[in-house]
Amino acid sequence: MEQLEFHVITDGKQSDDRILAVASTLVPYVTAIHIRENSQSAGSIYNLSEKLKQRGVKSEAIYMNDRVDVAAAAGLGGVHLKESSLAPDVVRKHFPPLRIGRSVHSSEGAIHAEQKGADYLFFGHVFSTKSKKDKEPKGLHQLRDVAKAVSVPVFAIGGISPEKVSSVLCAGASGIAVMSGIWNADDPVSIAKQYKTALMKGSDQDAQTL
Amino acid sequence: MEQLEFHVITDGKQSDDRILAVASTLVPYVTAIHIRENSQSAGSIYNLSEKLKQRGVKSEAIYMNDRVDVAAAAGLGGVHLKESSLAPDVVRKHFPPLRIGRSVHSSEGAIHAEQKGADYLFFGHVFSTKSKKDKEPKGLHQLRDVAKAVSVPVFAIGGISPEKVSSVLCAGASGIAVMSGIWNADDPVSIAKQYKTALMKGSDQDAQTL
Repeated sequence: MEQLEFHVITDGKQSDDRILAVASTLVPYVTAIHIRENSQSAGSIYNLSEKLKQRGVKSEAIYMNDRVDVAAAAGLGGVHLKESSLAPDVVRKHFPPLRIGRSVHSSEGAIHAEQKGADYLFFGHVFSTKSKKDKEPKGLHQLRDVAKAVSVPVFAIGGISPEKVSSVLCAGASGIAVMSGIWNADDPVSIAKQYKTALMKGSDQDAQTL
Repeated sequence: MEQLEFHVITDGKQSDDRILAVASTLVPYVTAIHIRENSQSAGSIYNLSEKLKQRGVKSEAIYMNDRVDVAAAAGLGGVHLKESSLAPDVVRKHFPPLRIGRSVHSSEGAIHAEQKGADYLFFGHVFSTKSKKDKEPKGLHQLRDVAKAVSVPVFAIGGISPEKVSSVLCAGASGIAVMSGIWNADDPVSIAKQYKTALMKGSDQDAQTL
């Protein structure tokens, strides 16, 4: 079966030095590090991705939020699009090598994003999280609906602790995306290992139920 | 001799409808309309450039500020880079068809931008302008120094009224870039004609002095 994926997203609150230090230790455990630094300039995030590569993060494992130009110029593995970004089909046409992700918040949104050519989806926030205090979490039920509605992999995002990994996998997620769970941790690499272990256990359970 | 250029830059304060209405009337007079809408998403400015084309603005005459991806995806003529944008040489390598402009604020900056492969430069602000109240204008003297320091065309920006066009041309500018002079005008097309006339007169004077 396909490898369950583990995406880590920067939260826009860390120094470049901490991003580099933490990200380089996460390499053995994660599928991709997403640079999501919306207040930084294109030049800055291009430099950050160059430095990540120098620190041993493979370019295929670096994804860029929204800025397709930076992803293409830096030869990154993927770009993660918001609803307000360039559409997946436009990106595919002009930047074919990039893996294209898209954030969605409903089954309809997921179906639309898949039709437009997204390679994978983030759905959330599944659980309550400090970064989305004012919005109700979507819950596992909606996650299940979304995962059923599309054939591309859906990764759960929002309030996912290592303990909650099995529940989102059970609901049909093909992996997870984590922000504060990593960046707010005193020992990010230890937490990353817990996430990875939970994903592998989840995967084992899946295999047993087949 | 080369045609003197006339660039009009959106100011981030107009509705899309006004941008479309005004820009379509400016077509006969301007070299390029720059979309500089830093608070709008990539999707929005992509749609805006598509609409500009539908309203008769040729794609070659639409330049995008900072967002190289949107410029490339929409097939626009140029991209205008800030100091914090992707570097001109990076853009040239990955997006070769785009004309690449760069804003500079000193002779050193101009020389560096030219070395990095910029096709043209904006230098300013030359005169005092409401949009840069707290900064001293650079003045015609510095404009002359910058224009002498590089071989790529330098377009003057900042507080340029039609009456001031001849002075910036005299100082070595190869054209002008205008923001509030157009968008704050009650009758933008009439002002655009005045700029164009001033540029053509300036050009005549140059020819006489040769």
